[in-house]
Amino acid sequence: MSFFERLKTQGSAEWRAYAEHPFTTAMADGTLPEAAFRHYLVQDYLFLIEFARAYALAVYKSPRLADMRAAAAGVSAILDVEMNLHVKLCAGWGLSARDLEQAAPAAEMLAYTRYVLDAGMRGDLLTLQVALAPCVIGYAEIAARLAARDNARAATNRYRVWIDEYAGAPYQEVAAKARAHLDRLADLYVTPAREAELVAIFKEATRLEADFWEMGLRKAGE
Amino acid sequence: MSFFERLKTQGSAEWRAYAEHPFTTAMADGTLPEAAFRHYLVQDYLFLIEFARAYALAVYKSPRLADMRAAAAGVSAILDVEMNLHVKLCAGWGLSARDLEQAAPAAEMLAYTRYVLDAGMRGDLLTLQVALAPCVIGYAEIAARLAARDNARAATNRYRVWIDEYAGAPYQEVAAKARAHLDRLADLYVTPAREAELVAIFKEATRLEADFWEMGLRKAGE
Amino acid sequence: MSFFERLKTQGSAEWRAYAEHPFTTAMADGTLPEAAFRHYLVQDYLFLIEFARAYALAVYKSPRLADMRAAAAGVSAILDVEMNLHVKLCAGWGLSARDLEQAAPAAEMLAYTRYVLDAGMRGDLLTLQVALAPCVIGYAEIAARLAARDNARAATNRYRVWIDEYAGAPYQEVAAKARAHLDRLADLYVTPAREAELVAIFKEATRLEADFWEMGLRKAGE
Amino acid sequence: MSFFERLKTQGSAEWRAYAEHPFTTAMADGTLPEAAFRHYLVQDYLFLIEFARAYALAVYKSPRLADMRAAAAGVSAILDVEMNLHVKLCAGWGLSARDLEQAAPAAEMLAYTRYVLDAGMRGDLLTLQVALAPCVIGYAEIAARLAARDNARAATNRYRVWIDEYAGAPYQEVAAKARAHLDRLADLYVTPAREAELVAIFKEATRLEADFWEMGLRKAGE
Repeated sequence: MSFFERLKTQGSAEWRAYAEHPFTTAMADGTLPEAAFRHYLVQDYLFLIEFARAYALAVYKSPRLADMRAAAAGVSAILDVEMNLHVKLCAGWGLSARDLEQAAPAAEMLAYTRYVLDAGMRGDLLTLQVALAPCVIGYAEIAARLAARDNARAATNRYRVWIDEYAGAPYQEVAAKARAHLDRLADLYVTPAREAELVAIFKEATRLEADFWEMGLRKAGE
Repeated sequence: MSFFERLKTQGSAEWRAYAEHPFTTAMADGTLPEAAFRHYLVQDYLFLIEFARAYALAVYKSPRLADMRAAAAGVSAILDVEMNLHVKLCAGWGLSARDLEQAAPAAEMLAYTRYVLDAGMRGDLLTLQVALAPCVIGYAEIAARLAARDNARAATNRYRVWIDEYAGAPYQEVAAKARAHLDRLADLYVTPAREAELVAIFKEATRLEADFWEMGLRKAGE
Repeated sequence: MSFFERLKTQGSAEWRAYAEHPFTTAMADGTLPEAAFRHYLVQDYLFLIEFARAYALAVYKSPRLADMRAAAAGVSAILDVEMNLHVKLCAGWGLSARDLEQAAPAAEMLAYTRYVLDAGMRGDLLTLQVALAPCVIGYAEIAARLAARDNARAATNRYRVWIDEYAGAPYQEVAAKARAHLDRLADLYVTPAREAELVAIFKEATRLEADFWEMGLRKAGE
Repeated sequence: MSFFERLKTQGSAEWRAYAEHPFTTAMADGTLPEAAFRHYLVQDYLFLIEFARAYALAVYKSPRLADMRAAAAGVSAILDVEMNLHVKLCAGWGLSARDLEQAAPAAEMLAYTRYVLDAGMRGDLLTLQVALAPCVIGYAEIAARLAARDNARAATNRYRVWIDEYAGAPYQEVAAKARAHLDRLADLYVTPAREAELVAIFKEATRLEADFWEMGLRKAGE
């Protein structure tokens, strides 16, 4: 079993709670309250800024030039491509760049991003990649699941754009590469003691990602 | 106005929500549900471990030997004194060392501690001390307020031990020193632009500390 | 006087020893022993890898999105452009990619790069940029001085390629931007106490850069 | 073979060049020029400050409370005990506290300390401990070798104090514990790929430690 599969198996309860969270399924069904999605979108913008910092940290941490280049490509992809896409997506929901920049960070966003950054600074490149995995690899898995549901990609589903972005070939390839990279690092560096520590970090990060969805739903209930 | 006073003034809404949180007042009145306090205590133990890491980071960050020594004394105080006191305090509430070590970290504990550690790693020693201030200095202020309330220190109040610890002379002196140190660092390094950034960090850290109290109350309501 | 001018003025002895080092003048005159240049080139390749890490650290440290993007562009420029140019330049001197990757790091390279990385991690973005300045801004100044010397750009001068690269418009613009950025950060964050600390870091980094030239000359004398 | 033995075996050339450096043997024989020793002493004082930072980093990096406590004890030992001993030792050689504080850092001191700090920040606790090992464990081994030489501990040998300090039981025990800790961490975390990387770091750190002795001798020749 590959390392990423082992992480998911050992954190299966956390993984399911995250990857099959009602927020995600409600996107596929088009039943997600708009307020929930908008709140999520704004926080996800703030999240991307921290994610760029985490990828920059991966450049700093990399012991090999190839690892540095892969991480640097991630930094550029986030800062130069994804964030612009995000600003456009937000505009479609009536959120201006100003709205995004002035948004107050939600505790759930702070918790996940700072947990990842601290785990990565404390440990080595592999630890950082494990903490990033629920997001980077998880989004691809979630979107693929959602895309397979009836009507998820129907023109009437206003959340289709999100699903298409992450279920589409370009992002699926980004995630596949990240997963292969993670498995390769694990082949090089994982021992049983290390794996136990990494599983704990993976479970924590996955739990904090589930809280991120929960944060969206809670907003809608306010 | 001293720098710490300026931080509190500019973040007065956040400060009040934290320093006068119902959780704290309920400790003085003895009306805090036991489940709330126990949950808080366990998370506070996990919190202390991260706080020792933050003080160690302050040693690493210090530009002067005197700053290093002050921070190193903080590390020792937490690891060698406070944590043992905490274990005893917990024992009095029926919580074993095993309970503490096996406790699952709450998102609120993760959010505050990782926010502080990341802010400190990203910035310099002053930034780190600002992020630590709501806890280090705030606890002294809160406990002093509580101690002045009727019956707070009555033998019948089961939360008296907590109030006494932080309202007592030794901790009040620790906090006074931390405050003087913060003001001194600010005298050396603060510009208007810097102050605006530090105020934002102070407000965020204070908000996350208020969430920590809230976490306790929520537990009691479950 | 701009901040960078103040740094140079306060560290004028160190700056002159670095910017007017015999190694540099010998490049303009074409009298630099080939062994000196080759040794320098190989170590400069290892240096660039660490410089990419330092720019990645600047992304991580940046408090503003614009600062992050500027630093990320620096990471990409080093990893995707400069290092390839360097490999080509080295090939022209008979040094293969394998030679570069297997080269043992010289103490002088380790000293400067690790000093910059540690100063930057310990302090904030401004500290990091000050530590980087002797290299980023200094190379432009040095190359401009050399280019103005008689025969420096003559076809017969084998070191012309180096001079042209750093005296050319693209690099001069990179350096001008870095300088403007540094001055802007200083406007926001510098106090007298801070300036004294930054001058000390600038002088140290400049001294270590001069050692880097010295290392080349020493090799030639072996 | 224990992990530390494997490090020494794989870096045997570097280890011998460091552990049997002429500077050390000349201390045992009492033939070391006084200028060499004085220069070393001053730089070693600056070195200790950075070593306290490295141990503080070990506290920050530690995944377990026991590791944190061991590292915190190291911070205190350096800042509260060793540095005071050092100031006294220096006074015996006519060096005032002011001389120590105002000393210009030598490139060799900067190279080794910053290399250790950067390697440790980039990697995890084990990487940091490997980078620290040549100093922490090496000094005990060197002093034990010197102490066994004829006349090394004679009252006439002015370097006897140094030898006694590191050959004495208290320091030998510190080193034995550090070695046991390193071996334990290696048992938990070392894979073949990891070991190759750690050997490279160990060899580099050992080389930079040998440069530190060399720096002393060079001074005497000036």
